[in-house]
Amino acid sequence: MPVGTQGTVKSVTPEALETLGARIILSNTYHLYLRPGMEVIRRVGGLHHFMNWPHAILTDSGGYQVFSLSALREITPEGVRFASHLDGSRHFLTPAKVIGIQETLGSDIMMPLDECVGYPSTRGYVLSSMSLTTKWAEASLQARTRPDRALFGIVQGGMFGDLRKQHAQELSQHPFDGFSIGGLSVGEPKGLMWEMVEATVPYLPEDRPRYMMGVGKPEDILEGIERGVDMFDCVMPTRNARNGMLFTSRGPVIIKNARYAQDTDPLDPECSCYTCRHFTRAYLRHLFMSHEILSATLNTIHNLHFYLSLTRNARRAIDEGNFVVYKKQLYDKWKETVS
Amino acid sequence: MPVGTQGTVKSVTPEALETLGARIILSNTYHLYLRPGMEVIRRVGGLHHFMNWPHAILTDSGGYQVFSLSALREITPEGVRFASHLDGSRHFLTPAKVIGIQETLGSDIMMPLDECVGYPSTRGYVLSSMSLTTKWAEASLQARTRPDRALFGIVQGGMFGDLRKQHAQELSQHPFDGFSIGGLSVGEPKGLMWEMVEATVPYLPEDRPRYMMGVGKPEDILEGIERGVDMFDCVMPTRNARNGMLFTSRGPVIIKNARYAQDTDPLDPECSCYTCRHFTRAYLRHLFMSHEILSATLNTIHNLHFYLSLTRNARRAIDEGNFVVYKKQLYDKWKETVS
Repeated sequence: MPVGTQGTVKSVTPEALETLGARIILSNTYHLYLRPGMEVIRRVGGLHHFMNWPHAILTDSGGYQVFSLSALREITPEGVRFASHLDGSRHFLTPAKVIGIQETLGSDIMMPLDECVGYPSTRGYVLSSMSLTTKWAEASLQARTRPDRALFGIVQGGMFGDLRKQHAQELSQHPFDGFSIGGLSVGEPKGLMWEMVEATVPYLPEDRPRYMMGVGKPEDILEGIERGVDMFDCVMPTRNARNGMLFTSRGPVIIKNARYAQDTDPLDPECSCYTCRHFTRAYLRHLFMSHEILSATLNTIHNLHFYLSLTRNARRAIDEGNFVVYKKQLYDKWKETVS
Repeated sequence: MPVGTQGTVKSVTPEALETLGARIILSNTYHLYLRPGMEVIRRVGGLHHFMNWPHAILTDSGGYQVFSLSALREITPEGVRFASHLDGSRHFLTPAKVIGIQETLGSDIMMPLDECVGYPSTRGYVLSSMSLTTKWAEASLQARTRPDRALFGIVQGGMFGDLRKQHAQELSQHPFDGFSIGGLSVGEPKGLMWEMVEATVPYLPEDRPRYMMGVGKPEDILEGIERGVDMFDCVMPTRNARNGMLFTSRGPVIIKNARYAQDTDPLDPECSCYTCRHFTRAYLRHLFMSHEILSATLNTIHNLHFYLSLTRNARRAIDEGNFVVYKKQLYDKWKETVS
């Protein structure tokens, strides 16, 4: 799903997102909690109204940003204490408070506060962190006042396959509406990441969605789907778009390359997005070199279209029973890299 | 008309411009000539194709940017020599070359090379500059190979009413398709600017459009219309939008002001643009404070809508014979400044 850090998916209007067919976005609780703050969100009746997004919103717990962005972090059994990266103001978030914030936002799919363990970590540290995450997950279920909004459990367990299995089994005992696979893509080798996914998925209930957090490249999405993952989020399509890295049916394109200066073909001749229907590679390169805001907008529209088509076509391939063929065809085409 | 410096009206897609009802944009010859250069524009079949704009394009001569942006400027009777502000490369533009560039761009309304005289300037300097501008205007008419594309004459004359009259009469002898009033809004007092407009307009043919270049604020547009001007261009609606200064039916709004932090009203309750129909002042302030690209896009949509409505309603008021009432009503409302 597209990621909206500051209550917007960067560089595109909600109207453009809707046209692209996006039906769920991720918003960052940490950012919205600090700015603009909960008072104004409450006053307008929630995040859907604030940002004019009529479809689903998934919110994270804010925990990840506390650890990656804020200062003076301290974990206690009750929650996390930190100082805002914006103004240094002090805050203390508990599992219950984090659910309260997400309910105020009006989130459709909420995440409980958890600890995303770094890589590498010792088995001892992972074990004790895992038990804290379980305790917080239970407290989150208790704190929920809106049973009509989904709450997921987040599976941790570091890079220990048996702990992944244990945590998946533990959390599956609880009435979560879905399950996130957390603590991956934190610097570990790619092979180890997939081992951990494989150690987790079989122990999650088949009738509830599995969500791999913060992943990933197009090939990661396909690998995850093949292993039973249903949901993904990543800044890559939008961030790379702003940096001029575009995903196409023939592999990635670095639009600033001089080879595109006189190239009057569409970015991706097989793509039907607004950008590819109306503009040449030469124009997209020109906008990028001129630091035009429209560059970010047109590139983002294309990259989001690419990801949304990738997953839409994957769903269809699964329905038709030929996902493996679909995946192989894409890999073969992406190998003809054009950038 | 909206101004597109780098082959784009900043922060908005051509689709959004079209929805706003814009039917003519200005593109800067100087910028496009230096980057991306004429070769790619020629290859895609002109600027309309390059930027995907199916409606009218007016191009300036590039002379203004040569004087305001480039280095090593030198005027000779044959043209202007300068060094690019991008890479220092040397260029020499003649009246004929400037027409050739605009014909390659596929401009619908072309401007001849002229000298925009600074303020203040001596009568002697203005007189000799004026005669050069006339010579270049005649050379431009000679150089034109596409009579289906309009070419305007540009009236100069500094801040001397009699010279303005003289130059308007001189240029009116030639078969230009319209007339620009140049060399205004260059630092002179506002009253003097209108004196010069009043000294020019009566000596221009009634059956051809008059275009006041580089102007201006909403009230300047109304004052110009009242004095017989038909066309305007200005970066103000788009540049101010990016800086968070928004035009509304009650006067300007500086969106970063803290008073808007909790303000759940639309930016302008009387406005029907996409931005005002879907977002609150609090959200627009939040986007601005968060340096979001969407801030520039939503603000630009609103400001362009404001200017396009202003002129659309002015045309209707003129048709209905009550322009003076229309102008007074707007002034009365703008006085209730809300920013």
